[in-house]
Amino acid sequence: MIRARIRMGMVGGGEGAFIGDIHRMAARLDGQIELVCGAFSRDAENCRRTAASLGLAPERAYESYEAMFVAEAALPADVRMQFVAIVTPNHLHLPVALAALKHGFHVMSDKPATLNLAEAVTLEAAIKASGCHYGLTHTYLGYPLVRQARDMIAAGEIGAVRRISVEYPQGWLSAPLEGSGNKQADWRTDPARAGLGGALGDIGTHASSLAEYITGDRISHVCADLRAVVPGRRLDDDVAVLFQMEQGAHGSLMASQISAGEENGLWIRISGEKGTLEWHQMAPNELILRRPGAPVATYHAGAEFEYLTLAARRACRTPSGHPEGYIEAFANLYRDFASIVRGDKRALDDAPLPGIELGLSAMAFVEAVVKNAAGDEKWTDIGALVTAARRGQETDR
Amino acid sequence: MIRARIRMGMVGGGEGAFIGDIHRMAARLDGQIELVCGAFSRDAENCRRTAASLGLAPERAYESYEAMFVAEAALPADVRMQFVAIVTPNHLHLPVALAALKHGFHVMSDKPATLNLAEAVTLEAAIKASGCHYGLTHTYLGYPLVRQARDMIAAGEIGAVRRISVEYPQGWLSAPLEGSGNKQADWRTDPARAGLGGALGDIGTHASSLAEYITGDRISHVCADLRAVVPGRRLDDDVAVLFQMEQGAHGSLMASQISAGEENGLWIRISGEKGTLEWHQMAPNELILRRPGAPVATYHAGAEFEYLTLAARRACRTPSGHPEGYIEAFANLYRDFASIVRGDKRALDDAPLPGIELGLSAMAFVEAVVKNAAGDEKWTDIGALVTAARRGQETDR
Amino acid sequence: MIRARIRMGMVGGGEGAFIGDIHRMAARLDGQIELVCGAFSRDAENCRRTAASLGLAPERAYESYEAMFVAEAALPADVRMQFVAIVTPNHLHLPVALAALKHGFHVMSDKPATLNLAEAVTLEAAIKASGCHYGLTHTYLGYPLVRQARDMIAAGEIGAVRRISVEYPQGWLSAPLEGSGNKQADWRTDPARAGLGGALGDIGTHASSLAEYITGDRISHVCADLRAVVPGRRLDDDVAVLFQMEQGAHGSLMASQISAGEENGLWIRISGEKGTLEWHQMAPNELILRRPGAPVATYHAGAEFEYLTLAARRACRTPSGHPEGYIEAFANLYRDFASIVRGDKRALDDAPLPGIELGLSAMAFVEAVVKNAAGDEKWTDIGALVTAARRGQETDR
Amino acid sequence: MIRARIRMGMVGGGEGAFIGDIHRMAARLDGQIELVCGAFSRDAENCRRTAASLGLAPERAYESYEAMFVAEAALPADVRMQFVAIVTPNHLHLPVALAALKHGFHVMSDKPATLNLAEAVTLEAAIKASGCHYGLTHTYLGYPLVRQARDMIAAGEIGAVRRISVEYPQGWLSAPLEGSGNKQADWRTDPARAGLGGALGDIGTHASSLAEYITGDRISHVCADLRAVVPGRRLDDDVAVLFQMEQGAHGSLMASQISAGEENGLWIRISGEKGTLEWHQMAPNELILRRPGAPVATYHAGAEFEYLTLAARRACRTPSGHPEGYIEAFANLYRDFASIVRGDKRALDDAPLPGIELGLSAMAFVEAVVKNAAGDEKWTDIGALVTAARRGQETDR
Repeated sequence: MIRARIRMGMVGGGEGAFIGDIHRMAARLDGQIELVCGAFSRDAENCRRTAASLGLAPERAYESYEAMFVAEAALPADVRMQFVAIVTPNHLHLPVALAALKHGFHVMSDKPATLNLAEAVTLEAAIKASGCHYGLTHTYLGYPLVRQARDMIAAGEIGAVRRISVEYPQGWLSAPLEGSGNKQADWRTDPARAGLGGALGDIGTHASSLAEYITGDRISHVCADLRAVVPGRRLDDDVAVLFQMEQGAHGSLMASQISAGEENGLWIRISGEKGTLEWHQMAPNELILRRPGAPVATYHAGAEFEYLTLAARRACRTPSGHPEGYIEAFANLYRDFASIVRGDKRALDDAPLPGIELGLSAMAFVEAVVKNAAGDEKWTDIGALVTAARRGQETDR
Repeated sequence: MIRARIRMGMVGGGEGAFIGDIHRMAARLDGQIELVCGAFSRDAENCRRTAASLGLAPERAYESYEAMFVAEAALPADVRMQFVAIVTPNHLHLPVALAALKHGFHVMSDKPATLNLAEAVTLEAAIKASGCHYGLTHTYLGYPLVRQARDMIAAGEIGAVRRISVEYPQGWLSAPLEGSGNKQADWRTDPARAGLGGALGDIGTHASSLAEYITGDRISHVCADLRAVVPGRRLDDDVAVLFQMEQGAHGSLMASQISAGEENGLWIRISGEKGTLEWHQMAPNELILRRPGAPVATYHAGAEFEYLTLAARRACRTPSGHPEGYIEAFANLYRDFASIVRGDKRALDDAPLPGIELGLSAMAFVEAVVKNAAGDEKWTDIGALVTAARRGQETDR
Repeated sequence: MIRARIRMGMVGGGEGAFIGDIHRMAARLDGQIELVCGAFSRDAENCRRTAASLGLAPERAYESYEAMFVAEAALPADVRMQFVAIVTPNHLHLPVALAALKHGFHVMSDKPATLNLAEAVTLEAAIKASGCHYGLTHTYLGYPLVRQARDMIAAGEIGAVRRISVEYPQGWLSAPLEGSGNKQADWRTDPARAGLGGALGDIGTHASSLAEYITGDRISHVCADLRAVVPGRRLDDDVAVLFQMEQGAHGSLMASQISAGEENGLWIRISGEKGTLEWHQMAPNELILRRPGAPVATYHAGAEFEYLTLAARRACRTPSGHPEGYIEAFANLYRDFASIVRGDKRALDDAPLPGIELGLSAMAFVEAVVKNAAGDEKWTDIGALVTAARRGQETDR
Repeated sequence: MIRARIRMGMVGGGEGAFIGDIHRMAARLDGQIELVCGAFSRDAENCRRTAASLGLAPERAYESYEAMFVAEAALPADVRMQFVAIVTPNHLHLPVALAALKHGFHVMSDKPATLNLAEAVTLEAAIKASGCHYGLTHTYLGYPLVRQARDMIAAGEIGAVRRISVEYPQGWLSAPLEGSGNKQADWRTDPARAGLGGALGDIGTHASSLAEYITGDRISHVCADLRAVVPGRRLDDDVAVLFQMEQGAHGSLMASQISAGEENGLWIRISGEKGTLEWHQMAPNELILRRPGAPVATYHAGAEFEYLTLAARRACRTPSGHPEGYIEAFANLYRDFASIVRGDKRALDDAPLPGIELGLSAMAFVEAVVKNAAGDEKWTDIGALVTAARRGQETDR
């Protein structure tokens, strides 16, 4: 029996975009997904060129996502796209997702899920109502050893979690890059397109989600220091947060895009009663476990390693010592999503695909940090913000 | 204009094989190559299942490579495969390549090029006669920072090369794995299928080729210590070599598959008059440069880094700090090969694709090491072996 | 001319103590200091045994520090101790220092300077009045590359400092060790002997002092999260702090003694406009400099390296590649202090010996963190606390 | 009871020397040894100044080692030196040692033991005849984790040793430094003062001794490539060796002083049937153990670690995470030697002090490498050389 590929449409990702290419490589890597159509750019010419360079039939390069959803929905079931990958700037995540869901298409969205918490609540309701699948490409959660860490903590290997450090230093916005022709810098520092948070929304949510995913816990309270360091910048570019988690762990988080010379230095350390785990995104195939009175144990990624959990091993394509990286982590999310769309959820039993729950949590984190940093209160309760947002949502209906 | 994908056929890589999957992911990653047919296994059922799982039309799953070449050659020019990827055990590399060339198909072959030096000489002649392109997937030469090292040395940044250390420790054959159902172990320790060298041929040639590629020089003389450490093993599993290069550098090389606990630890250090470069395959995104009286400089992979050479940057898909790995290195070779087949050689101006020249050199290295280790002479001259092999070839004609 | 050794007395450091031995090794290493007397323990027998094992004349093993100061002051000038090393639990630092100063002896004190801020103000005044020298063994400030970092920042090599991360994870108090016969654990968790802070005072002050020393700046405001995680513990064992510095940098600090499995993991990262410096105490001979668009530069310790500043080179005893460590860093402080006592201040022109100014700053930091964590205010102003303490001091007189 | 310090004399180590200072710091560190006299330099003025700067009585600064031995032997037993530290260039090691032994003084000698194998045989006999103790400061054998590795292998933790890689790259002689006023470079490249080997004798013997010490085995055969790379150099500056050990392990060794930019990069990897150990001198507080199918285990130095062997723990002065280094490793040898002189051999039960056996072995290694490199034979038998040397020695008597 021929296993048909899952058919994907894409919104965003035209020439000049960065993340669209990454999504396409990730979707392509395992040969389970086929890109069949796209609304790559509002610029029709760019859209057409992008489609051509990707080998798409010209008639499936659409002028707008609305047009795409309508046209694709009208195609035969075994031809039309099955899910859409949303790779636009943040402000379009919600409208595109809502339109896709309305037409019955599953959604794989770049993060953050939405521009803010209220939107996330709206999206959550729409997903539930639609019966469609929704995935969020929190890339770093696709790394094998992040899943290993999650499983080890769930299995109690370091005991109750006590303290977390998570940092995400970058340096690419050290200077005032916006307005100089850098598209990335332009929209990411524009509140209208990026949302409430700058560095906070872009990478701070990677850090908070990593902490939540690995611990299987939620951040409940934050106390924050948020700044725009570069003169004239309209969104924060540097943030530090003290936080508390529901199950009692405390932590600190830093996300900065003005750490000159830093590349993409996301890392996390989680200390529990019995040991401490540490993982660095730039050396992603190692997970370090320190235990009292024992040699330091470094877990390596490797498809053949029986000491890894099933979720971690399934996220490896190669034997140990053959480094996999960022694209493979991304591809793991796509492969998981393809399995879901195909109706095979086995892969997810052990490693949940990031979805709207995590996305909403990230938006609540952003909102709480912004609120806390702007006011006098020491600790801001995230749960209260979420409850209020849900209540607002109900009122709006 | 739609850029059509280059059409690939494959020989080998049926269920149970390892490297076939890697080749397919590598070919797929950049969306420039499409797998259209295959003779994946001598076992027709395996071949059929493999083709189906890959979404191939059943009629393009062939019972043999001979049948495939005949049938594909008869297809319209815009349908038939354009090149074949050879991913079989070593003993089939030559016959498959010769058959492909005969039918006018370009060849992308897993390494080593052939079983031995005589075969390599034969293949070299056949390639030249065919006018077809031939590439050899010496994976590690696809890494951006390997290309950076090559360019830096060519530019004289460390001066004349004086000393090289290159090692390739693995541990997977520490115990007698062959005969226990492990296909890899079976054929790799079988002289009929693997060739003259065991560890020497499998990974020793990766080490020697890495040294030759980075320095742009050739190994001229070897003095070797070759052993089968595991009792009953029919090919070497552990080798160490002192070597000299044509331009005066001396070096030592170690390749071992009985270094229990080692994963895939290929690394190299090259010292010149003015500095020393070091690269480790398991941390492939770093290249270390030590110079007298200066801080240690660590070059990082990253598409945006202007301090990298063009060849290195072109081999990066992501900004720095987003790790790429083994599959991406492999994919770089496929992307380069697709460019060649397409007639666009720009990519190769700066980083030559490994081909038959390097492949022949590796076979000569293997033959010289085996000869040296078996006899009393201290240094064995590789050039003399090659000359003799070419002469034998001419005589045979 | 024979260069006489500087004569040292010691208070504390009897059998069973840890830090006394370290001080003695540090004082001994360079052959410039001679231990001539001590009041090593309130337990006379312990004191006597300690003195004997150190080869001291029995008559110079004193029952109390008071007795020692009186007796030594009565000895001929070329025989009596010249300075006292205070290596007792924290609560004795002030009384011993005051007594020493009163008798005209210079003081080299283990950190923290005192139990709290008020005491530090008292000590500061006493030092000023005495005309004696006072040094504080903030060990980590004796490392060559910490001094290098300080000098590089002072020279503007990374531009204005923007963000600091400093962490000090330890795991030795992960379990309730106090009361089990561990002397260290007993006094360090006892408010009467340790002071206001537990982990905060013991290692948090190392972290804050490191940040202040390297930047040449002062922490002005703190926002803190302070806890005793282990049930029944009487002092904090885990603290995280957001902070601001006088010249505009922001930072986060973590100090924890319940990070199970961690050893002595002090590290710091300082980002400025033009680059980021990073240093790890457990790999002390490396200082990492990241700059936009440049290879990562790792500075190595080494007496011969002209790329290091004078202060850094003077703190090296060996050529590069010959690791120096904790004891040598400690010894650098003693060697500097010996130079001061001898009247030769050259060594200090480039690297100031930690003294009461830094000690008072650390006590203010502790007091501010405790106050902030206990109350509702978001940011606590350290300067205000110091001003108040000085005013209290004046009132008391 | 006062524990008296062991009294040490020194030959060599005047102003301008490097290693003398290291020996003095090492001897001083633990407070168990006192320098009481010296013949620091043939230059009487230098000798006098050195003695003064060290606080020695002028009458115990001797013009020659011969004079020193005679004069000290005439002093009362509780005053005179008990052992001599020899820190001269290599050609004086034998005559000074013989003179010391003749006067009944124990000897602690810098390595190599002698200029060549014949001298080593002579010295071995003299030591045996004298009844005195003899230690050789093979510094690197004083590191805690080198001793740990030795113990682990002796305990069978990695099974029978199969393959060894040991390298010692340095760069300080990359350029022709001799003749430019650098004392070190002058004598180390002068056959008359350095002996048969340049890099081979200076650092190659560190590498071979490390391999022998850790495995508890002896190198039996060598096959070598020896060169002087820098034009005009009179001794080798670059060597690579294939070797075999008595118990069946094979290995490769590299020692080079022309690896431009390298500092002091000694490292070793030992693979056995069950695992692989790796240690790097520049990160001496870590010992890496790789085992099939297990996380990589990194052993850390630390006085409190019960997972370390007794010999390793005794070689630590500080708790884990407080780095010790080169001087401490050196000091461990001195502390061990002091224990021997004192008659307390407990420390040595678990970690033998390097002595003449290892020293003779190193000289045999040098001689075999030089012989092999100069001739046509593939493998040179070290045992045969030693036997011949002993026979020559007997004949001479």
